[in-house]
Amino acid sequence: MHGNWKREKKEELVFNRQQEIIQACERLYAAMEYEEINIKEIAKSTSICRSSIYNYYKTKDEIFLDILRKEYFCWLEDLKEEMKRDKEGSRESYCRILAESAARHPRLLELISFHYVTIEKNCSLEKLTDFKKGMLPFWNGIRESLREYFPEAPQEKKEHFLLVFLSLLQGIYTMTNLSEKQLAAMKQADGDYENPRFVPSLQQALYTLSKELL
Amino acid sequence: MHGNWKREKKEELVFNRQQEIIQACERLYAAMEYEEINIKEIAKSTSICRSSIYNYYKTKDEIFLDILRKEYFCWLEDLKEEMKRDKEGSRESYCRILAESAARHPRLLELISFHYVTIEKNCSLEKLTDFKKGMLPFWNGIRESLREYFPEAPQEKKEHFLLVFLSLLQGIYTMTNLSEKQLAAMKQADGDYENPRFVPSLQQALYTLSKELL
Repeated sequence: MHGNWKREKKEELVFNRQQEIIQACERLYAAMEYEEINIKEIAKSTSICRSSIYNYYKTKDEIFLDILRKEYFCWLEDLKEEMKRDKEGSRESYCRILAESAARHPRLLELISFHYVTIEKNCSLEKLTDFKKGMLPFWNGIRESLREYFPEAPQEKKEHFLLVFLSLLQGIYTMTNLSEKQLAAMKQADGDYENPRFVPSLQQALYTLSKELL
Repeated sequence: MHGNWKREKKEELVFNRQQEIIQACERLYAAMEYEEINIKEIAKSTSICRSSIYNYYKTKDEIFLDILRKEYFCWLEDLKEEMKRDKEGSRESYCRILAESAARHPRLLELISFHYVTIEKNCSLEKLTDFKKGMLPFWNGIRESLREYFPEAPQEKKEHFLLVFLSLLQGIYTMTNLSEKQLAAMKQADGDYENPRFVPSLQQALYTLSKELL
């Protein structure tokens, strides 16, 4: 009994410390660029010293991986709420809800755009495996929504839709959310250039793609 | 006359120097990770000293932007060749050619995945504007292929297809080309996990999406 109690206490401490570190990193990310953030800066805005942070996270990307997981689940909750409220239950309303809800989570979209190429690269196998395990309920939540809206769709088509949907999230976001410099360069190169908008571009693509699910 | 000749000589020198720097950076990128490359390393494998490199490129990403442009045009040439050889001229063959030709340019696909979020961010407005101007013939080449295969498609639909196609290139590539560590983590989290393949996933998505163009 005593051993259990001690272990629980220790787990609680680890959890609380991790939460403090995650929140500090989130605060920094709200004010700074991803590139400027490092463990030293993060330590400064917590009560934990820099060397102790390494007991919980070996790299800043391991912290970002935890932020990413939070963001994915936050979006899933939002999605579920919207779907509950959806009276229509149509293919069109499904694609609209997917696109509009994603747009309400710009931090998630930003992180997704370097999730696979940067964040995952700089994490240990152990942290990455934990992340992938922790993400299974997220994927199952999305699969559940696909089952509800497209009860007849074959499994294989639904998995393809999922892959393409996530690909579009990162691709369309990076191509529609240009910085001022990127926009200025485009305008100077092509006076007629108009920046496409995220929600309608994504929604239209999803609507066409979801034909596979009928 | 004399002034012209001097200017031409100078332009030739600048061009040759830039080519030397680009080629050195390409050689390094074939052997090293993007993150490990810096101007110091690049200078070491050219005949140009580090401080002179800054006369041509202010950051390594300005060099990568030139590599990216080369890669885009290299792919366009490949695409045009394949289309010339295409007897079918169908929607299906168009999507197959797009997906298969892209897969033959893995360096392009890799660079595209951090083109907007990293490379463009670290370039001057001047370099970025030059890049965007230089890319116009590439976009027009792709637009021409769309006109050939889908002569009836409205302009707006073709532009949407282009945006979605480029988004899918980066997204599907990063989600299907996992590192060994990423694959191991996925397998440990979900024993049934099978990594989707780039060409069939992209080809199928393009085929469904190109319905918009009919």
